[in-house]
Amino acid sequence: MKITDLTHTITDDISVFSATEHPKITVAAEKETDGYSQKHISIYSHNGTHMDAPFHILKNGLTADDMPLEAFFGKGCVVDFSEGTEKEISLEAIKSKEKEIRASDFLLIHTGWDKKWKTDDYTVGFPVLSVEAANYLTNFNLKGVGVDAISVDTIDSSEMTVHHALLGAGMILVENLTNLSALPQSGFYFSSLPLKIKEADGSPIRAVAIEW
Amino acid sequence: MKITDLTHTITDDISVFSATEHPKITVAAEKETDGYSQKHISIYSHNGTHMDAPFHILKNGLTADDMPLEAFFGKGCVVDFSEGTEKEISLEAIKSKEKEIRASDFLLIHTGWDKKWKTDDYTVGFPVLSVEAANYLTNFNLKGVGVDAISVDTIDSSEMTVHHALLGAGMILVENLTNLSALPQSGFYFSSLPLKIKEADGSPIRAVAIEW
Repeated sequence: MKITDLTHTITDDISVFSATEHPKITVAAEKETDGYSQKHISIYSHNGTHMDAPFHILKNGLTADDMPLEAFFGKGCVVDFSEGTEKEISLEAIKSKEKEIRASDFLLIHTGWDKKWKTDDYTVGFPVLSVEAANYLTNFNLKGVGVDAISVDTIDSSEMTVHHALLGAGMILVENLTNLSALPQSGFYFSSLPLKIKEADGSPIRAVAIEW
Repeated sequence: MKITDLTHTITDDISVFSATEHPKITVAAEKETDGYSQKHISIYSHNGTHMDAPFHILKNGLTADDMPLEAFFGKGCVVDFSEGTEKEISLEAIKSKEKEIRASDFLLIHTGWDKKWKTDDYTVGFPVLSVEAANYLTNFNLKGVGVDAISVDTIDSSEMTVHHALLGAGMILVENLTNLSALPQSGFYFSSLPLKIKEADGSPIRAVAIEW
């Protein structure tokens, strides 16, 4: 068995949306004085590598704790758009990967944008799916789509059309993935299990790929 | 594939150690005003269903982010001490399960104590392994031990001998599990992947069992 980490480390200086504060990880107990070490974690549900439940955007969408666990675990594939990536991933580009997508539960889109993590460039201008490409993905039995950028929509999107298309089709989204270049094109299981927070619109996760 | 949830829901009124505050989950953004829903999560690294890394107790112990991901995922077995459970699980009782333990990466100890979750009775008087039983478990190649109570040591333990024995042998611990009665005795994978917090002494987790 081989497990590949697809998760950014949570620190106080990670890239976040401008409307959100950074996570704060503080020492709450120490072995020298308390006999054990403990930390306090202050974090938003969409900080760091995380998943979006439909309720994040859709008024009547499911929360993560209302979904079966199988919604967060399944066969993954990676499509590589890291070479010559345009700002928008076209319907044509996605259609060329139809065979891999059809055989998968999770589509992970590798753009290489994760290299800009923790720089000012990370949160602007990242590649996103075109609306047509997003709509096309709703024709499969995908459980979710994952990206190595902070959002599936452009940073200034008010309509959130890609979120609406994919979450509206019952999928989950996974954002701020990293290390997708370490994965084979297919032949792995993708895990994006959320914390069990009541009425969760999303959750920081430990995203991993498991190969047997 | 079947995935079984072994995790308590995180709410503001869960059972915690008296020295620790409750988690606080608050609404940070709403669709009506912000266009999306987001929550803020305030939680301690050992709140709710969580894992302990060796650094939780051991001065030079590994933190979770220093451990390979394979340390948190592997073949599980459940030993059932829910009938006639004494305060202490003896060496003899554990020895009687040698065959199951030898074939497993994770030993999950079912006592049924999780039924007391969120009551005053939960944090006192739960069954724990005897020191001899804990030391015996270090003779196997276990990756970890999980329990359906708040600790592997008694609540008033200052020595934390079971923590020391098991973490000292390089294992992880998983505490506050639930729903262990839903599992077969073996034939499943146990996942206790922690959040990727820098220098993590532990982490809230989504503990699950996966049967193929």
